[in-house]
Amino acid sequence: MPYLKINQNNFFNNYQVLKNLTKDENKIAIVLKDNAYGHGILEIAKLAHQKSIKNAFVKNMQEALCIQHLFENISILYPQSCFLQNHFEQCLKTPNILFCVASLEFLKTLPNGTQIELKVNSGMNRNGISKEELKEAFNIITQKNLKLIGVFTHNGYGDDLGAEFFSQNQNFSQIKKEVLSFTKSLNLPLPRFHSLSSSGAFRDNTTQDKQDFLEDSFYRFGIAFYGYLCADSVFNFQHNLKPIASLWAQKISTCKLLKGQTIGYSGTSKALEDMQISTYDIGYGDGLFRIKEGMELFTKEGYRIFARASMDCISIQSTQEEVCIFEDVSEFAKAFNTIPYEILVHLHSYIPKKII
Amino acid sequence: MPYLKINQNNFFNNYQVLKNLTKDENKIAIVLKDNAYGHGILEIAKLAHQKSIKNAFVKNMQEALCIQHLFENISILYPQSCFLQNHFEQCLKTPNILFCVASLEFLKTLPNGTQIELKVNSGMNRNGISKEELKEAFNIITQKNLKLIGVFTHNGYGDDLGAEFFSQNQNFSQIKKEVLSFTKSLNLPLPRFHSLSSSGAFRDNTTQDKQDFLEDSFYRFGIAFYGYLCADSVFNFQHNLKPIASLWAQKISTCKLLKGQTIGYSGTSKALEDMQISTYDIGYGDGLFRIKEGMELFTKEGYRIFARASMDCISIQSTQEEVCIFEDVSEFAKAFNTIPYEILVHLHSYIPKKII
Repeated sequence: MPYLKINQNNFFNNYQVLKNLTKDENKIAIVLKDNAYGHGILEIAKLAHQKSIKNAFVKNMQEALCIQHLFENISILYPQSCFLQNHFEQCLKTPNILFCVASLEFLKTLPNGTQIELKVNSGMNRNGISKEELKEAFNIITQKNLKLIGVFTHNGYGDDLGAEFFSQNQNFSQIKKEVLSFTKSLNLPLPRFHSLSSSGAFRDNTTQDKQDFLEDSFYRFGIAFYGYLCADSVFNFQHNLKPIASLWAQKISTCKLLKGQTIGYSGTSKALEDMQISTYDIGYGDGLFRIKEGMELFTKEGYRIFARASMDCISIQSTQEEVCIFEDVSEFAKAFNTIPYEILVHLHSYIPKKII
Repeated sequence: MPYLKINQNNFFNNYQVLKNLTKDENKIAIVLKDNAYGHGILEIAKLAHQKSIKNAFVKNMQEALCIQHLFENISILYPQSCFLQNHFEQCLKTPNILFCVASLEFLKTLPNGTQIELKVNSGMNRNGISKEELKEAFNIITQKNLKLIGVFTHNGYGDDLGAEFFSQNQNFSQIKKEVLSFTKSLNLPLPRFHSLSSSGAFRDNTTQDKQDFLEDSFYRFGIAFYGYLCADSVFNFQHNLKPIASLWAQKISTCKLLKGQTIGYSGTSKALEDMQISTYDIGYGDGLFRIKEGMELFTKEGYRIFARASMDCISIQSTQEEVCIFEDVSEFAKAFNTIPYEILVHLHSYIPKKII
């Protein structure tokens, strides 16, 4: 059966890279949402726990409950997603679980005393409370005695060259100042702030003109922990991050082909010489992307993968019992004109994870 | 939260279309592998059970055990995938579960008395025992007293114009004759035969020159049950199949944009006028494909979906509480240069299914 091999040494290497970057381990929060970007949320949470990471971010309540014993604070980025009433009540009772709130409407629905992080919009124009809505947000917070633990945004320009990255940082600085003035006048504790993910952190560190007197508490590191940075190559980050997951598949059967015989659906591929090919037990039904004609893809060992992939298997010019479909997913991502995130997060969660 | 609405009337409509086509309800087997192509295996199995469908095909042992109470025969197409010893023992004990065997190696590993369907290679050159290996296969079958319930192939040319479809049918006819001669001489019961899936069945029916004295027992209908046919448009099948699944998402937050303001990662999309946009709670982390710049995609209601999609949400020019991301997935499939199968089967299984 196919499986994901998780290389814990690479995870620890990546942790060290981020520690060298931030120069302060408390600046490292980990993003574990979407099954740890497909890597297995519990498996990765345990590795993070070994490094005493305190703050984690998940997608929904199920994910929070699954790892609640492993972190000081777990923030649910999309608490409405996969909403179940019994999970909601359990999360409300769990002191280290925080609800992220991206709209006034949702804020109004929360029970008195709920611990929240307020998501604000600093210019990505996606989720979040606008600067103009902050006053009403603080009204609701005080009326309902909500515990405001954090105020955060997502700077969606970390990967891109251009001024927008800085302009969003400026917007968030403005919002921080307003938050400060609200908390002062309402006699509330100052919340923690955070805004940058992996690429943003690398850029923040290369920028020496920070004049932010309300500094972010930490960076939310997602993709960097998994071994990738997707920033524009112009930044030329020398990061030494290592992919932590490799995907393996096992042989189903082997077939002898004569030169000219075709392979798979519609006979898209052709044997250019007499050869042996085998099918391996992963296909696009497992969440891998569907390899199509015109793609040049090889396993880590250099065996050619033939188009087209089937739902449950792929044909490879190999007779090995086991092959490594990828160790670094970047080539796959390029072939499908997407980013490593998408290839990894589409893998179905039933694929077993082996920590080595 | 996002959910898949399963329209049972459309499922029953599709059943009727297939019944009209085959003119015999016993000719209809259903393919439920890969979580019923992403639709929810148990939900779809129950609908199939209402129509008294007798034969079902699944991917692995977990899937077989999950629906074993609903069919006369359940064949496991990839029994080695997600192999667990306790599931294996349970399946061996369950009288209506059959193991599909695609290689002599696997055949040799099976315990005496196991019920099997032999997968043969009729020219797709993917999985399956070759004609030359049949003799050895029958040797192993008799030595181990395996119960040979079926012999089947997969004609991988159902969707394509050209002679290869017919040539594979011919190959399978040859194999059938050899199987007949082996079973006669070994005094074994004649197994059932099957080879064609949805498009193949439609083509088989349009072909009047069948001279196959060992007729297939049934067609394995997968994608047709889910409402699609992916055959070359030249065939111009007038099928009246209806997609059974529509994907719905719910609003997270709404944001007012002025003309010229940008949306989402890298500010890829721009407001061409003052507008309100909302984010909805589905993203590529849920298995949906990642909508990128250059794509023109709209919800069923006609609301524009903006690039780029995020991992957990997408931005749509709407303020509705709920939107229908797709009702017919063909447009999505075209935008991503793939087939409906891939879009549907990538959706993560935790997305709730609502039968209406």
